[in-house]
Amino acid sequence: MNFITGDIVGRKLFYRRNHFSYPHFTSSFYFLTIDGLVHTPRTISVQEIYSLPSTTIKVVLECSGDKREFFEPKTFGEQWGKGAISQGIWKGVSLRTLLQHTGLMDTAKEIVFEGYDYGQRPDSNHILNFSRSLPIKKSLEPDTIIAYEYNNQPIPFKHGFPLRLIVPGWYAMASVKWIKKITVIDKEFHGPFQAVDYVYYPSKENDSDKFPVTTINVNSTILKPLNMQLLHTGIYEIKGIAWTGQGIITKVEISLDEGHTWDTCQLKSTSEKYTWTSWSYKWEAHKIGEYTLKSRATDSYGNVQPIEPFWNRKGYGYNAIDRIKIKVE
Amino acid sequence: MNFITGDIVGRKLFYRRNHFSYPHFTSSFYFLTIDGLVHTPRTISVQEIYSLPSTTIKVVLECSGDKREFFEPKTFGEQWGKGAISQGIWKGVSLRTLLQHTGLMDTAKEIVFEGYDYGQRPDSNHILNFSRSLPIKKSLEPDTIIAYEYNNQPIPFKHGFPLRLIVPGWYAMASVKWIKKITVIDKEFHGPFQAVDYVYYPSKENDSDKFPVTTINVNSTILKPLNMQLLHTGIYEIKGIAWTGQGIITKVEISLDEGHTWDTCQLKSTSEKYTWTSWSYKWEAHKIGEYTLKSRATDSYGNVQPIEPFWNRKGYGYNAIDRIKIKVE
Repeated sequence: MNFITGDIVGRKLFYRRNHFSYPHFTSSFYFLTIDGLVHTPRTISVQEIYSLPSTTIKVVLECSGDKREFFEPKTFGEQWGKGAISQGIWKGVSLRTLLQHTGLMDTAKEIVFEGYDYGQRPDSNHILNFSRSLPIKKSLEPDTIIAYEYNNQPIPFKHGFPLRLIVPGWYAMASVKWIKKITVIDKEFHGPFQAVDYVYYPSKENDSDKFPVTTINVNSTILKPLNMQLLHTGIYEIKGIAWTGQGIITKVEISLDEGHTWDTCQLKSTSEKYTWTSWSYKWEAHKIGEYTLKSRATDSYGNVQPIEPFWNRKGYGYNAIDRIKIKVE
Repeated sequence: MNFITGDIVGRKLFYRRNHFSYPHFTSSFYFLTIDGLVHTPRTISVQEIYSLPSTTIKVVLECSGDKREFFEPKTFGEQWGKGAISQGIWKGVSLRTLLQHTGLMDTAKEIVFEGYDYGQRPDSNHILNFSRSLPIKKSLEPDTIIAYEYNNQPIPFKHGFPLRLIVPGWYAMASVKWIKKITVIDKEFHGPFQAVDYVYYPSKENDSDKFPVTTINVNSTILKPLNMQLLHTGIYEIKGIAWTGQGIITKVEISLDEGHTWDTCQLKSTSEKYTWTSWSYKWEAHKIGEYTLKSRATDSYGNVQPIEPFWNRKGYGYNAIDRIKIKVE
């Protein structure tokens, strides 16, 4: 688990998840090609990107496999606990600003982002680069940026140096690292990291009712106390975070009795879009015994964490009510 | 989990588990007092200890709560996975050599080791130092040492600098850190870290049939592949470690079919007392499907890992057959 002590996660504690080996760095990384359905295809240098008007945003990046280990039945893949989430400050240029330098044809439907990382997948004999697309609408939101700084420093190489797409509000597979090329297309992109992986498959046996992983689900985590911790009687501050991909967190509730009754937590500050909100709750633990603590977040779109997670075969998007057990002795 | 790449665990990856806050270092840490039932009570400086004949041993230190999270029903306490184990080279002076400088009375029954770390327990109003005892017999084994080096460097402060008791073959709570005082007594020691904690309580409701935690149980861990990993067809080397507190590891077996059939693994080297033994097994994964892999170690005393763990209320000494699930696609 990342140990989250503050509001910003330092580069050394930022979780890492990749699809291929780290790419071998060459000077070509300093150039970004934009082609496809644009009026003026271009190859732009990082220096030129630095010189454009910048946007700085605080963003939660959460792996869509975060909390996968809590699914029952268990699903295959990295057994993330509660730690595949980080928050920090990204600076870069809005993709819409960048696209003003190339123009965009009316037939544009999606934009494909190709990374420098490549390799072979078990389901194919070809070598391919990591690539994913975004719909035009999400691409042109002002907060969708081509980032070049993380926490006021160049992005660490393992997190995408020199250029990384940041898609606030979407699970982090969308935030393509080491961007090599941006291609505007007039149809749906069907690369395997979009059409095979990062797809919710509700059935164990077949692919019926599948749909793509996109927006981060409303979620919360109890950070303190720890699961199965032994406490003695006294007054405690229960602490945690809550986040959502849509709108802002409006409410976090806590239950100390397995979910029978709920009480509202204090939010540390006004919730901001794309960031996590810290919350706390003062608990007077007078009676010895075992307790199940639960936290439940609600966002401004009315989304509430469900009692049961939405099970899917690849284990994405877990967001059931968080729960821990503790004992007061 | 510690990521074990070699045979020796570096100081930064050594797991940490303490009972109180880290003590505040003062120059008194450089002196060790030996009193109680000895002919000549003494306070010995670290410099003098360095000048005595030394013993160097490679030792597994395993927290008695290692693998606690696998108990069913779950037990309270730190939810260690498979990572509360480390191995390295400790250098110091045999306790028996040290005691030649004070003599030992015939009535001596146990030796109490007091650390510089102290604090308050929930079950008491007093401040107390961490203290534990050893029976005279174990105390006088030549490999029971007062260590001052770990992997050819002074012991890191967080691991007990300048002097740490090392009790090979016992769970690591016995290897008292920051040793302040050694006291020889003629009865059983009943400090709370001996008589309350680090006791196996087989019953959830009461303390009947309790007995102390001492020797490390025979155990094994599959390190590669990881639990719930997705593989494709091919040839794999399954890798792991096995260890025991008594004697040496004589056999490690692996099962690829939920424990119906077992095959013998290759041991990387002749097993040595107090150390872990690396093992491997070549597996030709031709058929797609889900597999349960199990590993089972046997030691030279005939101890074998059990199918079911010995459940106890505080969750000590887990050593059931190790198991992981993987999927070949």
